[in-house]
Amino acid sequence: MRAPETTHPTLARQERVRTLLEERKLQYLVVSNLTNVFYLTGFRGSAGVVLIGRDEGVLLVDPRYTLQAREQAEGLEVREERGKLFRACGRWLARRRAREVGFDDWNLTYAAWRELGEAAGRRCRLRPCGGMIEEFRMVKDPTEIGLIRAAAQLTSRVFEDVRELIRPGASEADLAAEIDYRLRRQGAEGVAFETIVASGPRSAFPHARASANLLKKNEFAIFDMGAIMGGYAADMTRTIYLGTPSRRARRVYDAVLEAQQQAMAAIKVGERAERIDSVARAVLARRGLDQYFRHSTGHGLGLDIHERPRLGRGEKQRLKAGCVLTVEPGVYLEGFGGVRIEDTVLVGAQGAEVLTSASKQDWMIC
Amino acid sequence: MRAPETTHPTLARQERVRTLLEERKLQYLVVSNLTNVFYLTGFRGSAGVVLIGRDEGVLLVDPRYTLQAREQAEGLEVREERGKLFRACGRWLARRRAREVGFDDWNLTYAAWRELGEAAGRRCRLRPCGGMIEEFRMVKDPTEIGLIRAAAQLTSRVFEDVRELIRPGASEADLAAEIDYRLRRQGAEGVAFETIVASGPRSAFPHARASANLLKKNEFAIFDMGAIMGGYAADMTRTIYLGTPSRRARRVYDAVLEAQQQAMAAIKVGERAERIDSVARAVLARRGLDQYFRHSTGHGLGLDIHERPRLGRGEKQRLKAGCVLTVEPGVYLEGFGGVRIEDTVLVGAQGAEVLTSASKQDWMIC
Repeated sequence: MRAPETTHPTLARQERVRTLLEERKLQYLVVSNLTNVFYLTGFRGSAGVVLIGRDEGVLLVDPRYTLQAREQAEGLEVREERGKLFRACGRWLARRRAREVGFDDWNLTYAAWRELGEAAGRRCRLRPCGGMIEEFRMVKDPTEIGLIRAAAQLTSRVFEDVRELIRPGASEADLAAEIDYRLRRQGAEGVAFETIVASGPRSAFPHARASANLLKKNEFAIFDMGAIMGGYAADMTRTIYLGTPSRRARRVYDAVLEAQQQAMAAIKVGERAERIDSVARAVLARRGLDQYFRHSTGHGLGLDIHERPRLGRGEKQRLKAGCVLTVEPGVYLEGFGGVRIEDTVLVGAQGAEVLTSASKQDWMIC
Repeated sequence: MRAPETTHPTLARQERVRTLLEERKLQYLVVSNLTNVFYLTGFRGSAGVVLIGRDEGVLLVDPRYTLQAREQAEGLEVREERGKLFRACGRWLARRRAREVGFDDWNLTYAAWRELGEAAGRRCRLRPCGGMIEEFRMVKDPTEIGLIRAAAQLTSRVFEDVRELIRPGASEADLAAEIDYRLRRQGAEGVAFETIVASGPRSAFPHARASANLLKKNEFAIFDMGAIMGGYAADMTRTIYLGTPSRRARRVYDAVLEAQQQAMAAIKVGERAERIDSVARAVLARRGLDQYFRHSTGHGLGLDIHERPRLGRGEKQRLKAGCVLTVEPGVYLEGFGGVRIEDTVLVGAQGAEVLTSASKQDWMIC
C-alpha cells in the first residue's frame, strides 16, 4: 500500500487561493497582513508581502529576513528587496503585465495602496479582497485545533496554579507578571494579549490594564489571559470575589455565569453567530442587567486573538464545525465592579466543547 | 509671584495640531493611529478615533471604552458610537459640512478610508497627512525623557541580574521568560517587543525569536530586550560568547563594538541621520564585514519601538535635541552566528548620552 500523498498545509492553502483567484477572475492576490502571510507560507517576520498568481508565488522581504524567509517559507520564491516593499510588489506586477489583482483592503494602508498602484501601472486594476484569507482561517484543521487545545489547557492550569496568590494585598501588575511567567515557563511561546488583572471599581472597565493597585477584600477581580502555542491563541476570563459576596455581587455573578452557560448551550453547527449573542443578552435582560453588558458575546480566535465570526448583533454568519470561539458575557457596574466569564470553545457536531477548564464555581477566595 | 500656568501636555499637543491645521489650511484632522491618539489625549484603548478641529475636539469610542475614555481623555468630548467608528467619523464631519480634512494615510486602511470618505460626503476632501503627529513625537519633552531613562535603567539592571543564568544548557525561551518576568516585577508595565534570545547559528537571524534551543559552549547568544514604563520603551541588545572566543569571534565582536562606538560618537544636534549609519558601515567596511550588516544602524523610539528618525541610508532628517535613538550595528554570518550591540541614547547639546548602561566589555561567560 502506498502512503497517502502528504502536502504541507501551507501548500494546500496556497492552492485554495489559486482556486479563488480563478473564481473571482483575478490573476494575482497581494497578501499583506502578516498573519495571513504566516498562514499561507510559514514565514513569520515583522515585514513581508506575498504575491500569489495562478501558477507562481513570491514572498518579498527586506534584507533582515532573507535567511529566515528561505528557511521558513514553503512553495514560494523568496526575493530580497532593499526598497519599499509595496513599490517592489507593484513593479513585479507591472513586469508581468498584471491587469486584475486582488489586495487586502482591510489591511493595506492608503499610503501602501497608492505606492502599490503607482508602481503596478495604470492598466492594473486593484480589487478589494479583504477577508478572503480570514474566511479560510475561520475553520481550523486538526493541527490548529491541537495547538489551541494545548494553549487552552495551559491557560487553565496556570490560572489554577496562580489562584493561591490571589488575595487582598497582591498587586494587579504582580499577578499579571506571575501569570505570564508561568505560562511561558510551562511552554507558551508568549501571551495572546496583555494579561488583564483588574480589581475593585477597575473591574468595571472591560479592557482595563493591570495596574499597581492592590487587590482588596470584598471586591471583584477579573483575570483575562491566554497562552500562545505554535502561533495559536487561547483566551479565558475568570472573575474572583475576595471575601463573602454581598447579595448584589452574587446576583451579578450568577447572572453572568448563566448567560455564559446558556450561550454555550446554544452553539451548534449551522447556528447564526448573532443568535449566541442574543441568548446571552436575553438571560441578562431577565435579571435587568443587559444594559450593563457593553460588548459582544464572543469572537473567533486562532492565529489572531480576534478572528471571525464575531458573536454579536447583526452577525448572520453561520457557525461551522472547526470554528473556535470565545463566549464571554460580562456585566460592568460603574463604581461597583464587573464580572466577566469567558471560555474558549470548539464547535463540533456535538455542539460546543469547552477547551478552557478552570473552575467557574470556585469564585470566592476568603 | 504667580505660579506659571500649567497645561497638561496633551492639551498643548492638541493646540499644536490646531496651529498645523491653520498652516495647512485644513479644518479637521482625523487621528486614527492609536499611539497618536494616546499622545494627543491620554486615552489608551484598543479602538478610538480623534477628530481635532480648529476649536473643537472629539474622541469617538465604542461602548467598551466609554468609561475609560471619559476618565483618561483630556480636552475633548468623548462620544460613544455603536456602529463603525470611521463611518461615525465621516457622519460627524458631514454634519459640520467639513471640506478640507487631513487623515493619516500611513495608518488608515483602504477600507476605513472608503468608509470615512463615503460618510463624509462628496464635498469633503480627504488630504493625506501621514507622519504629522509622528513629527511632533520625534522630540521628547522632559517627562518623556524621564520615562525612557527609567525604562533604559531598568532594562540594563535586569540584564545584569540575568547574566548569572546565561550558561550552556539554559534554554533561549526560559531566559526570555526570566527577563520579561524580572522587568515586570521590577516595575515595567510590559515589554517593548518580544524579547529576543537567539544563540548559535540562530544568532545570525537579526530578528530570531527565542526558541526551545539550549545555549551551547563556544557560541554567541544575542539578547535584545526593552522595558516599557509609562508607555515609553527602551531598547538594548547585548551579545555574549559562551566560552573563550575564537579569533574570528573576537574579530567580529570587536568590529561591531567599534562600529557602535564610532556611530554614537558621530551623533550631534544637526547631524543627518544617514551620517550615523554611514559611520557604522565604514568601520565594518574597513574590517571587510559591511556586507554582513543587513539592517539600518538604528531608529528613534518612544511610545513606539520604531519611530523616526531611522538611522539608515538616504535619511536626510537632521537630529534634534530631545531625539531618543537606538544605535545597533550587527554582523550576521550564516552558519556561524551573529553579533549585535545596541544602546538607547538621548541626543543633547553634548552629543549622545547613553541611557542603557549594561556592560559591553564583559561579553564572555566561561
